[in-house]
Amino acid sequence: MPSLRTALLQSSGRPGDVAENLKRLDEYAGRAAEAGAGLLVCPELYLTGYAIGDDVPRLAEPADGPGAAAVAGIAARHGIAIHYGYPERAGDLVHNAAQLIGAGGERLANYRKTHLFGCFEQEHFTPGGQPVVQAELNGLTIGLLICYDVEFPENVRAHALAGTDLLLVPTAQMHPFQFVAESMIPVRAFESQMYIAYVNRTGPEGEFEFVGLSSLASPDGAVRARAGRGEELVLGEVDPVLLSASRETNPYLQDRRPGLYGSLS
Amino acid sequence: MPSLRTALLQSSGRPGDVAENLKRLDEYAGRAAEAGAGLLVCPELYLTGYAIGDDVPRLAEPADGPGAAAVAGIAARHGIAIHYGYPERAGDLVHNAAQLIGAGGERLANYRKTHLFGCFEQEHFTPGGQPVVQAELNGLTIGLLICYDVEFPENVRAHALAGTDLLLVPTAQMHPFQFVAESMIPVRAFESQMYIAYVNRTGPEGEFEFVGLSSLASPDGAVRARAGRGEELVLGEVDPVLLSASRETNPYLQDRRPGLYGSLS
Repeated sequence: MPSLRTALLQSSGRPGDVAENLKRLDEYAGRAAEAGAGLLVCPELYLTGYAIGDDVPRLAEPADGPGAAAVAGIAARHGIAIHYGYPERAGDLVHNAAQLIGAGGERLANYRKTHLFGCFEQEHFTPGGQPVVQAELNGLTIGLLICYDVEFPENVRAHALAGTDLLLVPTAQMHPFQFVAESMIPVRAFESQMYIAYVNRTGPEGEFEFVGLSSLASPDGAVRARAGRGEELVLGEVDPVLLSASRETNPYLQDRRPGLYGSLS
Repeated sequence: MPSLRTALLQSSGRPGDVAENLKRLDEYAGRAAEAGAGLLVCPELYLTGYAIGDDVPRLAEPADGPGAAAVAGIAARHGIAIHYGYPERAGDLVHNAAQLIGAGGERLANYRKTHLFGCFEQEHFTPGGQPVVQAELNGLTIGLLICYDVEFPENVRAHALAGTDLLLVPTAQMHPFQFVAESMIPVRAFESQMYIAYVNRTGPEGEFEFVGLSSLASPDGAVRARAGRGEELVLGEVDPVLLSASRETNPYLQDRRPGLYGSLS
């Protein structure tokens, strides 16, 4: 099975300006596809921006809404899968969601953040109730989490037990929590033996200061691609051969003793 | 509540020579106590050495055996609590164990490693069945794990949920797994909001090459004390005020959603 070249779009786009964010996405998707990437991953709430405050309900749309249709058009035009964050309208509720669109423009999977972070999110969003959402892409099992979710080892472990090979984690990681971007992400990849694409916003936005430092971490604990602090497109390889070899060397999933973990759930 | 100054004894001692290892322990306990430490933590299987091969059954002793009595004498003489690893004889079984002795020489807690690592351990030891063993020391709740145990986030989380403030982890961490010593330990401390004293053997021993790099990690993700590659005594502070402040800033334990973690156990 060949490697999947994965592009990480570290950008805050323009908060509140969906049309502009879609235009930028189109440009970056073109660049990523030209560079041989089969998948482009965007940050949390990329479609609308994160610091949109009370505009969340107005900007929210269903999983098959006009933003999704526009992203599907971009994906199909450039022949690249795209994973993007957006505020999802579901009846009276709004979720902090992220959706994976295939290279043909088909909707592959939609995930609603289960662990909301801080006051802004807890005020404006309803947490999701499904911990593991997956899709198949290029022979890999793709898993979906968002930002704060990945800081809980339980969520990543649940993905590992369900067979996730590559975990996509759009994020909006703020100062002073860069320890998560720098240290925790490679440890998560190592302890649960999977690739993790952690894709952040960057720069100031309203009351927030995002730290960038997006990364692609591999199951051997290495960082295969790392962005700096600014807007940036970085690429890395998700290699099924390395993944298999690492799982042989680090048999965490076989050495677990589930009977001892009853207090966790 | 005052800080607990904690001493980490990074040493392989002399494999198979219990008398020599007790002599060194006595010297280091004296130095640690003079430096103001209230607790000295030794590596995995410190009493006998790790690379003792088929001598495990011969060198194993009960939790109240002669080695324990000698350690109790050292602790009482210097007025310092001591945590040490040893092969525990329990009827027909032998466990990879570690025991905490109080500053008065009293036996406070004994833990049997639940997650055995590799062929040597799996051949010579029986895994323990109690995931969380704790004791009170200087107003802190002390938790006990051994080496490979700490690499499973489930084990550390179980301690966090049970109220562990300071986790003591004697280890025998080998090349090429130093990623654990360097990166995973501070992440474990951060994600479960506790102090972790990770105390390793060092240098070559039989077929093994231990990497040193013992550390005291704090719940803010910092490393408060770090040893190099050789035999070394390092000291760090376990500060209840910092611990409380960090738990306020990082409310992981409150933000967990146990109802979503059913697949882990």
